[in-house]
Amino acid sequence: MKRIYMDYSATTPVDKEVIDEMAPYFGKYFGNPSSIHSFGRDAYDAIEKSRSKIADILNADADEIIFTSGGTESDNLGIMGVAYLNKDKRKRKGNNIITSSIEHPAVLETCKYLEKQGFNIKYLPVDKYGLIRIEDLEEAISKDTFLITIMYANNEIGTIEPINEIGKIANKYDVLFHTDGVQAVCKTPIDVKKLNIDLLSISSHKIYGPKGVGALYIRKGVKIRSLTHGGGQEKGLRSSTYNTTGIVGLGKACELGKIRLKEDMSQLKYLRDELIKNTLKIELSYLNGHPIKRLVNNANFCFEAIEGESLNMMLDEKGIASATGSACSSKNLQASHVLTAIGLNPEKAHGSLRLTLGRENTERDIKYIDNVLPDVVENLRKLSPLWDR
Amino acid sequence: MKRIYMDYSATTPVDKEVIDEMAPYFGKYFGNPSSIHSFGRDAYDAIEKSRSKIADILNADADEIIFTSGGTESDNLGIMGVAYLNKDKRKRKGNNIITSSIEHPAVLETCKYLEKQGFNIKYLPVDKYGLIRIEDLEEAISKDTFLITIMYANNEIGTIEPINEIGKIANKYDVLFHTDGVQAVCKTPIDVKKLNIDLLSISSHKIYGPKGVGALYIRKGVKIRSLTHGGGQEKGLRSSTYNTTGIVGLGKACELGKIRLKEDMSQLKYLRDELIKNTLKIELSYLNGHPIKRLVNNANFCFEAIEGESLNMMLDEKGIASATGSACSSKNLQASHVLTAIGLNPEKAHGSLRLTLGRENTERDIKYIDNVLPDVVENLRKLSPLWDR
Repeated sequence: MKRIYMDYSATTPVDKEVIDEMAPYFGKYFGNPSSIHSFGRDAYDAIEKSRSKIADILNADADEIIFTSGGTESDNLGIMGVAYLNKDKRKRKGNNIITSSIEHPAVLETCKYLEKQGFNIKYLPVDKYGLIRIEDLEEAISKDTFLITIMYANNEIGTIEPINEIGKIANKYDVLFHTDGVQAVCKTPIDVKKLNIDLLSISSHKIYGPKGVGALYIRKGVKIRSLTHGGGQEKGLRSSTYNTTGIVGLGKACELGKIRLKEDMSQLKYLRDELIKNTLKIELSYLNGHPIKRLVNNANFCFEAIEGESLNMMLDEKGIASATGSACSSKNLQASHVLTAIGLNPEKAHGSLRLTLGRENTERDIKYIDNVLPDVVENLRKLSPLWDR
Repeated sequence: MKRIYMDYSATTPVDKEVIDEMAPYFGKYFGNPSSIHSFGRDAYDAIEKSRSKIADILNADADEIIFTSGGTESDNLGIMGVAYLNKDKRKRKGNNIITSSIEHPAVLETCKYLEKQGFNIKYLPVDKYGLIRIEDLEEAISKDTFLITIMYANNEIGTIEPINEIGKIANKYDVLFHTDGVQAVCKTPIDVKKLNIDLLSISSHKIYGPKGVGALYIRKGVKIRSLTHGGGQEKGLRSSTYNTTGIVGLGKACELGKIRLKEDMSQLKYLRDELIKNTLKIELSYLNGHPIKRLVNNANFCFEAIEGESLNMMLDEKGIASATGSACSSKNLQASHVLTAIGLNPEKAHGSLRLTLGRENTERDIKYIDNVLPDVVENLRKLSPLWDR
């Protein structure tokens, strides 16, 4: 059976060029980058080259990048690292953090945890497209606010938040601005300097790099506290033997991502628009997220009277890998907090289908889905107690 | 020039069989293990197989293993995870942790951090071989003690601590026992059940697996708190997309480590003993650590009037990769806390040479070192103001 992968926002395969770039670091250049002998120096050099490649896609400087084990750790370190320094040293004003109600769990759960630790968290609502309102943000800021953490683009519905405006507000009120860039990096051009971003989280496995590695951009001058303790790597901010292969892979993925950005974006956008156009022909189907301010690879639908989980499984049987909600919560039967936040009732929120495209998808994939999906929806509706036509 | 690697305690190359095992998970089986479609299920199955292989080398059960980004994270999670649960819920008695003065920084710095957070830490001294005394341990335990964290074997001098006795004491006083097993795993047989170990840290890149992955054994029934927050993987204890390739690699490394344990141990011990015998022929040279209770691959020497850093560099020029102290602190000019703790004065503690052997070392390597090292030491001594013969 043909197998079509349309879950690129959950994870991507590692690019062949990335695998080739990593390969020598498993064997030939396996040294510990912290060792002073030649084996160590070879590895150290590779890490510093990677750091530059990552900085490059953000218009940051190499010494503003630190390596982590992935997007979740980057989010945790960026947010808690700032919060705890604030708690310890009272360097900044108060105790307040502003976030949105549609963040990835890595941000949302971190905020909830900090709430239990005595921080005040303001969860901004979003409109029906998943956009925060700048007026809400400005209103939420008080003299006690020290951090805004709002995602660059949403992982479920693909909505791109008004990062430029958020950065301006953060700058105006002298509040730090962290953004979870996990879904946006390599899918839209990002310039942290222009956008006034102080901290940005990156995950390697969302951009054709290996799993188990990520990065956190920390603007020069921004102080954070480490979450773990040990050998003192990464200026003491992230102790652990360097994951050389992973870091080299992430660097290469960023390099390729930069080169291919325009081409990737136009191809993905073309395929996505075809997919959306075809799918919305299905009776009582709706697009979730913003029609224009959305990631080039994201399509997210609701189908009246359809349960998302069943739809995923039926599509899987037809060889199509899709998602409902995010991969993290896909084994969890709660309705998506994102779909609830944009105003969908629980039935609809349970009935979503996320199709996220990547470099290997083709027009034939889009056509195959167009052949399969309407029948699958029809068959499921026949079985649904909510469908009475 | 011939290049000889004798820094296997800093890191190891990835075994070819491990690389082969990982390879399909970069591409063919790249799915997110948390996804419910077939791509996800393939990856999920691989992770659960790996979990069993890791449990296997410890005589643990698969559901007692959770995956981390490496040894440092495992140590941090094991220690802080237990400490914070204690702090939050007051489930256990008091506020006291017992450790040793020669722990790896991942343990020592974590304990120092907890000290600042209000925990009481008792740092046990060690004897001239680096062994803690069981009497000291028993004396240090009070009704307020909830955790003992003492390393299985020391990373610098190779001394193997009396784990069996420590486990008995922990059991007797109903105190949790965590051990940093990073250097010991696959170099000595470990049975967590027999040894009464509650938590044990593993690092993949020390046992011919990839960097960026590790594991923490948590005995069934032992509760810990997570350090990061997110998608809820690993029963909520370690949120982050599974590093499938890394985990598969660690599993294979453990499988191979188990098969080869006897052979590895006897070969390494033979080479190590030759190395020690040869090296101690050098005038005013000393072996650090215990002569018998030591890791099969560890040799650690002091040479009167020699500065370790210079010795490392001279050996590097001769193609020999060695260490002074651990890789983590090798760019740090402070005298080793381990050598200081076993009673060496700062001059001697600065003059140490660590040679740690691995699977690829041969008798020819030992002979080469025997040819090179005496001259290097002699030449350095000629330049040393401390040498006046």
